[in-house]
Amino acid sequence: MLHVKTPEEVLALIEREFAAVADAELVSLSAAMGRVLAEDIAATEYVPDFDRSTVDGYAVRARDTFGCTDAIPAILPLQGEVFMGEGAEFTLNPEECVAVPTGGAVPKGADSVVMVEYTEDYGDGTIGISKSAAPGQNMIFRGDDVYPGKVILRKGRVLSSQDIGALAAIGKVQVPVRKKLTVGVISTGDELVPPEVVPGPGQVRDVNSPMLEAILGAFGVKVINYGIVIDNEALLSEKVRKAVSECDAVLLSGGSSVGVKDAACRIIESMGELLLHGIAIKPGKPTILGKAGCKPLVGLPGHPVAAYFITKLFVLPLLSVLSGRKQETYTTTAKVTESIGANHGRAQYQCCRLERRDGELYAYPIRGKSGLITTLAGADGYFCIDRDCEGLPKNAEIQVTVCSGG
Amino acid sequence: MLHVKTPEEVLALIEREFAAVADAELVSLSAAMGRVLAEDIAATEYVPDFDRSTVDGYAVRARDTFGCTDAIPAILPLQGEVFMGEGAEFTLNPEECVAVPTGGAVPKGADSVVMVEYTEDYGDGTIGISKSAAPGQNMIFRGDDVYPGKVILRKGRVLSSQDIGALAAIGKVQVPVRKKLTVGVISTGDELVPPEVVPGPGQVRDVNSPMLEAILGAFGVKVINYGIVIDNEALLSEKVRKAVSECDAVLLSGGSSVGVKDAACRIIESMGELLLHGIAIKPGKPTILGKAGCKPLVGLPGHPVAAYFITKLFVLPLLSVLSGRKQETYTTTAKVTESIGANHGRAQYQCCRLERRDGELYAYPIRGKSGLITTLAGADGYFCIDRDCEGLPKNAEIQVTVCSGG
Repeated sequence: MLHVKTPEEVLALIEREFAAVADAELVSLSAAMGRVLAEDIAATEYVPDFDRSTVDGYAVRARDTFGCTDAIPAILPLQGEVFMGEGAEFTLNPEECVAVPTGGAVPKGADSVVMVEYTEDYGDGTIGISKSAAPGQNMIFRGDDVYPGKVILRKGRVLSSQDIGALAAIGKVQVPVRKKLTVGVISTGDELVPPEVVPGPGQVRDVNSPMLEAILGAFGVKVINYGIVIDNEALLSEKVRKAVSECDAVLLSGGSSVGVKDAACRIIESMGELLLHGIAIKPGKPTILGKAGCKPLVGLPGHPVAAYFITKLFVLPLLSVLSGRKQETYTTTAKVTESIGANHGRAQYQCCRLERRDGELYAYPIRGKSGLITTLAGADGYFCIDRDCEGLPKNAEIQVTVCSGG
Repeated sequence: MLHVKTPEEVLALIEREFAAVADAELVSLSAAMGRVLAEDIAATEYVPDFDRSTVDGYAVRARDTFGCTDAIPAILPLQGEVFMGEGAEFTLNPEECVAVPTGGAVPKGADSVVMVEYTEDYGDGTIGISKSAAPGQNMIFRGDDVYPGKVILRKGRVLSSQDIGALAAIGKVQVPVRKKLTVGVISTGDELVPPEVVPGPGQVRDVNSPMLEAILGAFGVKVINYGIVIDNEALLSEKVRKAVSECDAVLLSGGSSVGVKDAACRIIESMGELLLHGIAIKPGKPTILGKAGCKPLVGLPGHPVAAYFITKLFVLPLLSVLSGRKQETYTTTAKVTESIGANHGRAQYQCCRLERRDGELYAYPIRGKSGLITTLAGADGYFCIDRDCEGLPKNAEIQVTVCSGG
């Protein structure tokens, strides 16, 4: 008999029982955003590949400007000009200068650039320099940013826009990423009809399939929706087997009645191993987890709010393990607008709206009588009321996980 | 002459000068995730549409159970059974009970449900109830979750997965959203080559185009990349005019040299109005903003780190205005791992890595000598050092905007 596990135990179980399965593939840079990097990425070139000016001005030997002032400028013959996008294929002569644009190449022999603001072109082929330059000033040297062998991104990272920029800079236009996982979603329940159907007596619309598709899609996995299966163990077993054969993971949602839960457990046991039967969390206790080979099967609660939290809190970490994804979630601090009662026994998750007033962020708990959806709709985030929380006064600071847009 | 504006002034300017332009369109529920809602959404039905049990048990009149205990159960004849997905097309007789599954319809006449755990089936057509029920117990009533006319989502909201669930519940399978904006991206600079090309002497790869495409794509706009234009005012003008005619907004990146900036200003003035020339921010000061009709033209700094911050801090808010999008950004609290020097004159933005140790979140500033990309690559977020910051000691709490995955 499996006992109910705490959230921490469930996450440890997931880490222990599952491993990365997603193969690597190469995608173009423009398709790499949000994908999971499959290898460490090291530069193979210098960036920049030449000494570069960071200002519009004159490249000089710093020592030729030492001591100059507005009153006594250093007067240096202009040896030539560097143009953008061209190399500086010459060497600066001592006690001369070369005009360089921002981003232009600094010629050999020069060790600094004087900003044009501190110079005067006398029109006779000489330039007056009124501020002395320090060696290295207003320059980026070859390889200052990146040099061959320097690791710029670690595997497991979810590529963000700034990483795409870095990959572009080093010319990594084919990016090794993990293949997208395929996740199957099955809804069970005799009472369910698809969202486009008007429910008849005793029927409700299937909320979980489209919601799970949205969560999983935003997380970057492919979803196969196997539709609604009635509460019939043989049919359910057949559908689960098909989904397991076609997917990397299978989510079974619904079946809130005892009979269906038992059927789901029997199906999982017949295909592999049941790992978990119940999580000490509210909402979401009736959650089951098993595996068929290396593939996880999750039985989610039928209640949409419970299914939402279990997916966010446990299914996404599970999919992170399968895809070798390393990504933290972060919280934002807000003041809760109502007092929160004491909580004993189970970690409780509560959706909230966030509102900024006078620079302070406030979290409004969205209450509802076991609402199917209204405690989710319009939520900006959620917070956890710890298992042994003695209650929180109004305006207490809480940590909110933001879920707008996710 | 336009003076340099503070970030707050720039955001106010954007709000004042631009307005929502994106038309509405209907998309299917499965395509609505992440889109901007174009109208308030009100329910047109009751959810649930019938009184529903939240447990497996027996529907009763509460009064028929008052005072019952383990020792003296209430014994009620079983009138019948409700099946999942079927209506309860009969009325409960007084002093009888009806079996109902979790989620099943509760018959008329019943006002509560007793959990099966507190009952015993005597096998003779009667059920023993050992715990008295309170009226309303273990039930959701018709419309408890949603009723016709109830607004469940407000226009301007970026639809998240929980909203998709709510739309499914009320049968809103065609969702009115704002059309995606089209944003044109033009890179300028004689020194730029596309990322797939190995730079020659004095050349560097175009980092900004792919980075901007990634930022904008993740934000949910269509991007037209007009490629790299050399520093030639006539060519640039032609390209900008084409982009303005085809897009809702145009970003011009690069042209860090004075000449190109001036050319960009002249082009904007010839097409409309120059609104801004410089923002008091580091990096990112040389930013220009204008409009041609209702369409914004932004001249971004060429330096990728500067272009990144200006896009995140000003271009995305600008696109939010154009698309009628209402979305806050949130920060997470972290301790900075190095002391931060005093800052005078310009708000300064600094990328950082985030790392959790012993439950505390630490922000490691990513330093770099005017690095083109390494101060961005691998960053998990960024923080602002205020204009008049007197410096921060090591381990001071800072507010970090998380940008992993964005």
